[in-house]
Amino acid sequence: MASQKRPRPRTKLRRMPERAVNDREPINEILDEAVVSHLGIVDDSGFPVVIPTTHARIGDDLYIHGSAASRTLKRAAKSEICLTVTLLDGLILARSALNHDVTYRSVVVFGEPELLRGPEAKREALHAFTEKLVPGRWDEVREPTDRELKMTAVMRMPLDEVSAKVRTGGPKDVDEDYELPVWAGVVGLHMTAGAPEPDDRLLPDVECPAHVTALDTHGARWRGR
Amino acid sequence: MASQKRPRPRTKLRRMPERAVNDREPINEILDEAVVSHLGIVDDSGFPVVIPTTHARIGDDLYIHGSAASRTLKRAAKSEICLTVTLLDGLILARSALNHDVTYRSVVVFGEPELLRGPEAKREALHAFTEKLVPGRWDEVREPTDRELKMTAVMRMPLDEVSAKVRTGGPKDVDEDYELPVWAGVVGLHMTAGAPEPDDRLLPDVECPAHVTALDTHGARWRGR
Repeated sequence: MASQKRPRPRTKLRRMPERAVNDREPINEILDEAVVSHLGIVDDSGFPVVIPTTHARIGDDLYIHGSAASRTLKRAAKSEICLTVTLLDGLILARSALNHDVTYRSVVVFGEPELLRGPEAKREALHAFTEKLVPGRWDEVREPTDRELKMTAVMRMPLDEVSAKVRTGGPKDVDEDYELPVWAGVVGLHMTAGAPEPDDRLLPDVECPAHVTALDTHGARWRGR
Repeated sequence: MASQKRPRPRTKLRRMPERAVNDREPINEILDEAVVSHLGIVDDSGFPVVIPTTHARIGDDLYIHGSAASRTLKRAAKSEICLTVTLLDGLILARSALNHDVTYRSVVVFGEPELLRGPEAKREALHAFTEKLVPGRWDEVREPTDRELKMTAVMRMPLDEVSAKVRTGGPKDVDEDYELPVWAGVVGLHMTAGAPEPDDRLLPDVECPAHVTALDTHGARWRGR
């Protein structure tokens, strides 16, 4: 068990297991909304390396994947990693320079990922990746072959040691600053999706399907709240 | 020198110094556009920890800051860190499940940050943080006091060991998949900023200034291209 190697719990969920059930839902929401995550490993020299990746969730397991030749993934597969996702929600404008901040939701996952063996488990994970990126996509595209699956490293990490941190609301100024005639408040930020741009080599009769046109948010928020 | 501890160069810029000048501009653009970065450290047990933070750039130096009491920052200040920023630009819809991807721009910075001493250097960095978050803001708000600056840890890291990775364009399918009648292309994603939401405790006569109303992008891209 990886946990035996750890000298101390690193997440609130371990320290307060009674909160785990209540907290799992917002954690899952953040993980599902975020496309990009940041994978932290310790390299052969003992230095930290953080690379952007994507992730997918199936139930209580988180998955990451990449080329089986990737050095970082090989390294991640046999050691403790940290995977962090952050959603930026807005800018907090305070009355003093130091109290400026951002609203955000983040999740940190610690663990020792396990490399998936065999095509079936990998195919299930890739289904989750594809459907997460574009719901409805899997049934429309060519599925991976066994040979392709062999060349793909997929890792599973149970969401055991996981915690979320969420900053909402407005500025928190020091008492005397509330007397200052300075505008303070929040400017919300959100991700929007544009119109689908067809590939140059699209076959002439292929129309843009509903699961793709549905992505265009016309300025409204893409995913999440 | 931190570099003497490093057994090998970890970025292309070191291996190909003749590219450094050409590459610095896109690297700076990515760093300046991104609000959130991910700071990777190695904890006391030798495990990786990745936390979201914010950063600011002045010339060829990158700055991070936080409470002087922060354990992570204390740890970062005396060791090698990795700071990674990633901007998500779009979804790449390929003809096969495995070739789905995202367009993105990312920068990875390695280094050993130096804690700033004295109020002047810290004030200069906080000016950069504030102006980066909201241009024109610094002159409108209360500046930090020397006491507040003492309670704030600010770290500087030269942009020496830094590299960018950029994925643009459309799907790259395997040759035979181009014959499939599957829609393929890109759906662009971009961040937009909404209308300023005033703080509940705003003084009655304070109007929203131009540097704040200017943030509202009305559905257009907030920052960058």
